Amino acid sequence: MSNPDTLNARPLETEEHVALDEDYVLTTAFVEKVVDAADDGDGLRLRGLLEDLHPADVADLMGFLTVEHRGVVVLWLPPELLAATLPELDDGIREEVLERVPHLTLAEALQELDSDDAAAVVEDLEDDRRERVLAAMPDLDRAAIESSLGYAEDSAGRLMQREVMAAPQFWSVGDTIDHVRAQGEELPELFFDIYVVDPLNRPVGGVAVSQLLRAPRSAALTDLMEPINEIAVDQDQEEVAYVFEKYHLISAPVIDSAGRLVGQITVDDIVNIIQEENREDILRLAGVSDEDRGSSISEIVRGRVPWLAINLGTAVLGASVISWFGATIEQIIALAVLMPIVSAIGGNAGTQSLTVTVRALATRELNRSNSVRTFWREIAVGLANGLVLSPLIGVAAALWSGDWRIGAVIATAMVLNLIVAATVGVLTPLTLSRLKFDPAVSSAVFVTATTDFFGFLIFLGLATVVLL
Amino acid sequence: MSNPDTLNARPLETEEHVALDEDYVLTTAFVEKVVDAADDGDGLRLRGLLEDLHPADVADLMGFLTVEHRGVVVLWLPPELLAATLPELDDGIREEVLERVPHLTLAEALQELDSDDAAAVVEDLEDDRRERVLAAMPDLDRAAIESSLGYAEDSAGRLMQREVMAAPQFWSVGDTIDHVRAQGEELPELFFDIYVVDPLNRPVGGVAVSQLLRAPRSAALTDLMEPINEIAVDQDQEEVAYVFEKYHLISAPVIDSAGRLVGQITVDDIVNIIQEENREDILRLAGVSDEDRGSSISEIVRGRVPWLAINLGTAVLGASVISWFGATIEQIIALAVLMPIVSAIGGNAGTQSLTVTVRALATRELNRSNSVRTFWREIAVGLANGLVLSPLIGVAAALWSGDWRIGAVIATAMVLNLIVAATVGVLTPLTLSRLKFDPAVSSAVFVTATTDFFGFLIFLGLATVVLL
Repeated sequence: MSNPDTLNARPLETEEHVALDEDYVLTTAFVEKVVDAADDGDGLRLRGLLEDLHPADVADLMGFLTVEHRGVVVLWLPPELLAATLPELDDGIREEVLERVPHLTLAEALQELDSDDAAAVVEDLEDDRRERVLAAMPDLDRAAIESSLGYAEDSAGRLMQREVMAAPQFWSVGDTIDHVRAQGEELPELFFDIYVVDPLNRPVGGVAVSQLLRAPRSAALTDLMEPINEIAVDQDQEEVAYVFEKYHLISAPVIDSAGRLVGQITVDDIVNIIQEENREDILRLAGVSDEDRGSSISEIVRGRVPWLAINLGTAVLGASVISWFGATIEQIIALAVLMPIVSAIGGNAGTQSLTVTVRALATRELNRSNSVRTFWREIAVGLANGLVLSPLIGVAAALWSGDWRIGAVIATAMVLNLIVAATVGVLTPLTLSRLKFDPAVSSAVFVTATTDFFGFLIFLGLATVVLL
Repeated sequence: MSNPDTLNARPLETEEHVALDEDYVLTTAFVEKVVDAADDGDGLRLRGLLEDLHPADVADLMGFLTVEHRGVVVLWLPPELLAATLPELDDGIREEVLERVPHLTLAEALQELDSDDAAAVVEDLEDDRRERVLAAMPDLDRAAIESSLGYAEDSAGRLMQREVMAAPQFWSVGDTIDHVRAQGEELPELFFDIYVVDPLNRPVGGVAVSQLLRAPRSAALTDLMEPINEIAVDQDQEEVAYVFEKYHLISAPVIDSAGRLVGQITVDDIVNIIQEENREDILRLAGVSDEDRGSSISEIVRGRVPWLAINLGTAVLGASVISWFGATIEQIIALAVLMPIVSAIGGNAGTQSLTVTVRALATRELNRSNSVRTFWREIAVGLANGLVLSPLIGVAAALWSGDWRIGAVIATAMVLNLIVAATVGVLTPLTLSRLKFDPAVSSAVFVTATTDFFGFLIFLGLATVVLL
């Protein structure tokens, strides 16, 4: 593709150097050059700028461009680079880009990819386009993609690549090396472990490639092999990521229900999943549904408004508590001034307990064997927080209002609401998790709604009893 | 260590099977068995339970135990297993365990570990113990650990292992395999890439081990090698993790300031760093400092109270805004009922904008080239959220209060406060990041303080102007 003789081509070294800053992020200057070339419709210059970028950087670039500029860039990306870029794109941008690529070009590009990456791209196509693209591919590639799509989304089967390096139990190191040299084409481009299989193709152990290299040609694989962590093909990807992380795996064999080797998962795919799961957790805690750089404003609003609307409902609930005490507030306006303090601190403390609990559940530091202890620890923390903070606010409120009873009421209300906050902060995610729901979804809304409700109720209720 | 002939030993297969549930988490039954054995002081039974666990599972087990039980378990862990478990422990628990291990045992255990893992453990020792442990180690191991500790905390130098597989440019595949077979002892236990170096020991390319295996013995390394991503020894670990993640690396060479190869970093260490950084982000957003399973209640309270205290200060600020409008509230009690709704929705919308921005900064989807566009997008989202939600609350408030002007005031105040929320939600982390601070720290407190302040100010101010 490269065409170093045209006027527009730049020395490769220099382009590379200009494209990324010291933080491995595309420079504004480089992005502007791309935008200028796209505006001018200067395709050759555009290709010159793009062709030596890493696919991950092309994907980054797409995120920095507008829809219009992305449209121009896609036209001028060399086909191999387009193929390698597709799996790297944010979902929203990938869908948009896929719509612009003719289906024959796409069918060709997908053949360049590993079966798992190709399947991830095909998955995003609309039904009728998917049929046409698959129909334009060679039988073998199509079968691999269709088989991958046959597994549940987010399962190990969808994640694995079918290409795998397996060796029978009776092979020596020499046999294995000779096989790899002879059959290199059919093996995965990169592999880190050789899976030793029995006559029924069931893995019985693994040999790291560096261990194979170290051993004499005559050594038997069965003498070198170590136990392996097998992944079931229907296992959830979050589960798979946990096993990789916990046992520091680089790759793992995937087996079907009969225990037969059907593919392998490598750690580079796991890194993406860990980031994705973390992203989901952090955004869900804040009440944001999936959105990315490519999302339109209306998509973002549709993702965020439902949570705000639920929050509006719970805020109205809190307001209705206040309205029960209208007569009290009418007599002591100071209560209206102080009441948001009680609910705010409760909300914050509840969010602390909630976040710690959600995180501990995600990393499985928290499970049935220590949930009761964790619960009591959070309650103790809530009480301690209250005993530290309530004298501060109690004294301040007493001085400001000139009524020590108001100070006593707010201090007591704060201690009680901090215990409520700890209780609801730890029980909400634990309960959701026990019921097999994602503990991050909707927890935050429920926790702050509860601390608002009880914050107002305890403070205004106590005030009514004590002060009137 | 294993002693299958004693009365207390159980068949290995069965223990393993009982220890973990289908989620790869230690079962309550297993943890209870360990607790029972520790209570009975039955060391042999304890060792029988523990000796076939993976170090990661021993670390998990420690997290589920009390301080007292941990003390007993440490005594009965086989030394090799203790060594392998140390790097896996939570920081707090590791410090506690280290205090219980005699320094000669520790010096012996550390020799079993790779230099990076050993350094991570030694780092946690108090100064005088560190000296004694290091003094008890062979010169070579001590030198490796001391050199590792010479690099800044959280730097690539601290993260790397010094053991690395390098090959001169003139070697063939055959030369390389012969070298590995002969010198296997000095090489890293596992390696995934062979780094080709020039006569000054500067890396010029890399060959994946599986590619080496595939090539004929006569092939030259320089013909097989591909460009590599070099990591500078003083690079921050977060930076290193970003490069690994972006370019899907399995391992990368680390170079000193003269460009010479000094070590390698492998992806399994990166997975831990990614989790650690994500953990920090999610906890900091909630105002929780570092705490883990091993933290005492007073440590947890010391970590959380400062944020709650700051929040108390900002809540007082919000309350003072309300107090300015005491006269208005006295005349229309309905305002006291409705005002928390305006601030609550503002706080939630601000947290949404904030979280999305912090996340985009962490993944570098957001940088100088698109920060202005991101800002305007958030403002547009804030306005749109307001236009969707404010009619709901406006009509509800008008009906409830019987005064359409109160409905108009709350609807207008909500739109304005949602724009404030978007502004402060996106500008706070952007500004912190521009000033080289962590955008997650203290952002949430500042955002909700601002939305509370303006929420009360706009709503009560408008009400004073319109209604009185």
